[in-house]
Amino acid sequence: MRMVDLIEKKKNGEALSKEEIHFIIDGYVKGDIPDYQMSAWMMAVYFKGMTAEEIATLTLEMMHSGDVLDLSEIKGIKIDKHSTGGVGDKTSLAVGPMVAACGVPVAKMSGRGLGHTGGTLDKLESIPGLSIAIEEKDFIKQVNEMHFSIIGQTGSLVPADKKMYALRDVTGTVNSIPLIASSIMSKKLAAGADGILLDVKYGDGAFMKTIEDARVLAKTMIEIGKHLGKDTRATISNMNQPLGNAIGNALEVKEAIATLNGEGPEDFTSLCFEEGETMLMMAHVASSREEAKEMLHKVIEDKSALNVFKKMVEAQGGDGSYITDPSKFKEVKEVIEVTSSKEGYIEDLEALTLGLVSMKLGGGRATVDDVIDHSVGLVLHKKIGDYVKQGESLLSVYTNTGLSDELREEIISAYHLTSQTVKKPNIVEETL
Amino acid sequence: MRMVDLIEKKKNGEALSKEEIHFIIDGYVKGDIPDYQMSAWMMAVYFKGMTAEEIATLTLEMMHSGDVLDLSEIKGIKIDKHSTGGVGDKTSLAVGPMVAACGVPVAKMSGRGLGHTGGTLDKLESIPGLSIAIEEKDFIKQVNEMHFSIIGQTGSLVPADKKMYALRDVTGTVNSIPLIASSIMSKKLAAGADGILLDVKYGDGAFMKTIEDARVLAKTMIEIGKHLGKDTRATISNMNQPLGNAIGNALEVKEAIATLNGEGPEDFTSLCFEEGETMLMMAHVASSREEAKEMLHKVIEDKSALNVFKKMVEAQGGDGSYITDPSKFKEVKEVIEVTSSKEGYIEDLEALTLGLVSMKLGGGRATVDDVIDHSVGLVLHKKIGDYVKQGESLLSVYTNTGLSDELREEIISAYHLTSQTVKKPNIVEETL
Repeated sequence: MRMVDLIEKKKNGEALSKEEIHFIIDGYVKGDIPDYQMSAWMMAVYFKGMTAEEIATLTLEMMHSGDVLDLSEIKGIKIDKHSTGGVGDKTSLAVGPMVAACGVPVAKMSGRGLGHTGGTLDKLESIPGLSIAIEEKDFIKQVNEMHFSIIGQTGSLVPADKKMYALRDVTGTVNSIPLIASSIMSKKLAAGADGILLDVKYGDGAFMKTIEDARVLAKTMIEIGKHLGKDTRATISNMNQPLGNAIGNALEVKEAIATLNGEGPEDFTSLCFEEGETMLMMAHVASSREEAKEMLHKVIEDKSALNVFKKMVEAQGGDGSYITDPSKFKEVKEVIEVTSSKEGYIEDLEALTLGLVSMKLGGGRATVDDVIDHSVGLVLHKKIGDYVKQGESLLSVYTNTGLSDELREEIISAYHLTSQTVKKPNIVEETL
Repeated sequence: MRMVDLIEKKKNGEALSKEEIHFIIDGYVKGDIPDYQMSAWMMAVYFKGMTAEEIATLTLEMMHSGDVLDLSEIKGIKIDKHSTGGVGDKTSLAVGPMVAACGVPVAKMSGRGLGHTGGTLDKLESIPGLSIAIEEKDFIKQVNEMHFSIIGQTGSLVPADKKMYALRDVTGTVNSIPLIASSIMSKKLAAGADGILLDVKYGDGAFMKTIEDARVLAKTMIEIGKHLGKDTRATISNMNQPLGNAIGNALEVKEAIATLNGEGPEDFTSLCFEEGETMLMMAHVASSREEAKEMLHKVIEDKSALNVFKKMVEAQGGDGSYITDPSKFKEVKEVIEVTSSKEGYIEDLEALTLGLVSMKLGGGRATVDDVIDHSVGLVLHKKIGDYVKQGESLLSVYTNTGLSDELREEIISAYHLTSQTVKKPNIVEETL
C-alpha cells in the first residue's frame, strides 16, 4: 500500500477501507508517513468528506493509537460530557456536581483554553490548592466515592490526534467535519465512559458559526457513537452571545457555585438542566425528562450538588471553603464599569469579541505558553433582548492592569443596539 | 504574511495576489515554507484552481526561482517546442532538423523518459558518442552555426519546479492544470526562446486522457504566454495509439531519419509537417501554411534537413555516419513477431500498454535510476483502422531478453479488433 495512492483515492472522492485507514493512522503515528502526505490527505478529506463508516473507522484507529482508559472499576453507567467550546462556558462545573449528586458517576477529562475560549482545567485551578494531575487509580477511586472528578489528560491518550491536530492547525485543515468529529470522539472514547453527551455550540463565539454546521457535526458524532456501540447524544446550543454572565476563570467558578445554589443566570441554568436531564436519562436513573428535572431541582435545593462539588475540590487538594464562601476568591485591583453611550434593545452581543477581551486582560492564552491570571474577566449586566439606558453599565471589567481605551472600544463594539424590542434567544436549540 | 492564511484563502476559492504568490514560491525554495504546508496548498489549488493572472504570476515566480537562459546572441527568432509526452514521440528529432534547415534557430532543452513515455535525450544517446551535456556558450555557438541543438538542462533552471514536482509526485497533486501549466511554461520561459510551440497530447498514452482536458491545458499555457508577452501556440494531437510505428530509443531515431528521408509513417510525418509549418510561421520565415509546407517538403527532398541532423549529431560528438547509414545501429539478439489469433479491423490500440511493454523490455525506466537498453523496443505493423488477418504479424519485438508469455499477452491485449471497418484517426486535432 502506498500513501500517495490513498491520497489520490480520497482526492477522487472514493471511500477508503478499514485497512487503508489503519495504514494511514498507524503509519503517521509511527512516522512512516511524512507530514507532507498527511496534510495533502487531510486537505482532500476537507474537500471530499468521508462516509459514516470511514469516520467511525478513523475514530477507532485514532482512539487505539495510544492508551485507552479502563473505567470498569467504577460502578454504574458512567456519563461523560464534552462541549465544543465557547465563551463563558462553565457548564461542566455545575452540571457535573448536579448529575453526580443524583448518583451518576461523572469521570471527566478536560482541557485547557486557547484563544477566546476558556478551558475547564484553567477555571478549576482558580481554586487554591486544587490539582488536576491525578493518577488514574485515584481518579477511579474518587469517582467511586463521590461520583465526580475532573482531571487533565493522563497517560498517552490518542497520540494520533495530538500529531494530526498540530498539523491541521498550520495547514488550513482545521474546519473539516470528519476531522473535527473523529478528533473529539476518539478522545472521548479513549476516556472510557459508557455514554457521551456532546454540547455542540454554534454562533460567533463557537467553532461552528451556523446552526446547520453544528447539526452536521452533532449528527456525525452521534453516527460515530452508533457505529461503535456507544450511547452518544448531542445538545445544540447557542453561542451567539456569552453563556451566562461571567467570563474569566474565578468569575466563572463563582457563577457555577451560584448556579449550584439555585441563583445562576437563567440561560446558563437552563442549559445545565437540559444537559443534566439528558445525562440522567442516559444513565437510566430517570425515565423521563420531568423526573430528571425534579431530581436536579432537589439536589440544588438541598445543597447536595454544591456539596459534591466541595468534596470533589477537597479530594483534589483544593480549599473547599471557597465553594461555601466564594467571597474568598482573590480580589482584582479594580472593577471598572463600561457604560453605554446610547440607549436601545441589545440585538447582538459578540461572544468572540468579549472572549478575546477577557483573554487580553490576562484571563486566557494567546499562545499555549501564556500564564493565566485567574482573577480577571468580565461580568455582563446586559445581554441580548435587554433594554439599556444611556449611561447604564453594560458590564463590569475585573482587571489588574486597568482598561485601555482600545479594550473599552472593543467591548462597546461588541454590543449592537436597536430601537425595536428583541426577543431573548433560546439557549438550547434541540437535543439529538 | 502567514502561509496558513494563504492556504485558507486558496481553500476558500479566493485568488492570491502577486505578493502572496511570491511569498509562497520564494519561501518554499528558500525552505522557509515546509513541505507539509506546500502540499496542503497544492491540494487546495487542485480543488479550487487559479485565475489566469494567478497562473501567470506563479509561472513567472517559478521561472525566476533560478537561472534564466540568455539566448540573445542567437540571431533570428528562436522557436522552442515542447511535447507533453507520449508513446513513440520522436517528433523533435525530425521537426527540429526540418525547421532548422529552413533557417529557423531551434535551441532545445529536453528531458529524459520515465514510465511509459520516452525522453528525447535517451533517444539521442542511442547514437554512439553523442553528448547532451553541452556548455551554454557552445550550445549558443552551435545553434548560430547550424540552427539546431538539443541538450539536457544546463545550470540551475527553475529549482522551484524541481522541488514542487518532487512533492506533487508523492502527494497526489500531479494532475492539476494550473500546476502542470506553470511547471511546463516556467521551464520553457527560462530556456529563453522567443516563441514556444506546445504539442499537447491526449489519449490513453498521454498525460491528459481526454481532448477536453488537453484543450484546457493548452489554452491555459497559451494564456500564460499571452500574459507574459511570449508567442505561444499549441497543437492538440492524438495519443490514443502510439505515434508512428517505432517505440524504443534507437528504433525511434531510425524512424526519425526515415522521415527526414521522406519515408516516415503517415501519421508521424503529418504531425511533423503540422508542427513545422506552425514553427516557420511563428519565426516569420513563412507567411502561410502552404508556403511553410512547401519549404519543409523542399528540405526533405534535397536532404538538407537530414544533413542538419547529421551535422548536429557530429557537433555534439556523435558518429554522423549513423544518420546516413542507420543500418549501423546496434542489432538486438532477436526480433520476434507477435501475430494475431483473430481477424478484423483494429478499433483500439492501447498506447499506454505498448509503452509499458517497451519499458519492460529495457527500453525505458520504471524508476529514475534504471539503465536503458537503447536497442530494444517495438515496431508496429498494424494500427487503428488496419485490417489484420489471422496469423498476421501485429508488431515486431526487438529484444535482448526474449519475450515472456506475460509480455506477449500484454501486447495482444493492447489490440482491440472488430468486424466493422474503422476510420483511421486524425493525428492532429487542431492548432491553437
